[in-house]
Amino acid sequence: MMRKVEHIGIAVSNLEASEKIFTDVLGVAPYKREAVASEHVLTSFFKVGESKIELLQATDSTSAIARFLEKNREGIHHIAFDVEDIHAEIARLQDLGYSMIHDQPREGADGKWIAFMHPKGSGGVLVELCMDKP
Amino acid sequence: MMRKVEHIGIAVSNLEASEKIFTDVLGVAPYKREAVASEHVLTSFFKVGESKIELLQATDSTSAIARFLEKNREGIHHIAFDVEDIHAEIARLQDLGYSMIHDQPREGADGKWIAFMHPKGSGGVLVELCMDKP
Repeated sequence: MMRKVEHIGIAVSNLEASEKIFTDVLGVAPYKREAVASEHVLTSFFKVGESKIELLQATDSTSAIARFLEKNREGIHHIAFDVEDIHAEIARLQDLGYSMIHDQPREGADGKWIAFMHPKGSGGVLVELCMDKP
Repeated sequence: MMRKVEHIGIAVSNLEASEKIFTDVLGVAPYKREAVASEHVLTSFFKVGESKIELLQATDSTSAIARFLEKNREGIHHIAFDVEDIHAEIARLQDLGYSMIHDQPREGADGKWIAFMHPKGSGGVLVELCMDKP
């Protein structure tokens, strides 16, 4: 099961401009920037309660965020949920008939193991599973 | 400032089918359904940590959810943040130059006072302020 909203991922075209907007809206500054080379993104994180807001800017045209912004306006890209055991959660969802983009965890931003579900199966919502690295 | 992610609103075309999907994905059943007559929606709520997932199905074609689904596929519609004083937060955002859809709080689902920001100002993200009714 999902223990909390770990973060909400927002696709942006200009990280610096969006950092200004979300600093205003949330009333708090980002606590870090992090490049995720494997995903071709530059990220910026804000803390809100037990959750985070993650801004994602593509660093090149092969990034999933670049492809998203070719088809969509800037906006919410995914919801990530915190799980205790990512392998067990992937197996649980697959047993229920849901399809994973990643059937093995991969390294994500912010010190996490992550895996994405196929959004077609989950009501058009791109769902990410997130587990703290031990 | 925003104290926590109060809920994430997801626009759905078939509430019952989506309740099944999100019960599977989240590993927990919805704790209530609620009709919001003023918004022309039927909602279903799931608890995830300190936040909620709210499924929204339009009850007629004048609903904002019906209009959203004319232009978009099913998926994430808005993020709602919990605030201590909704009047103060509306004033704070307006003073910073942000535009509100509702410059006065109105009654929302789940026993809340709510107000939406204009998404054009907030990076394409439809942001809702939410305050518990006293």
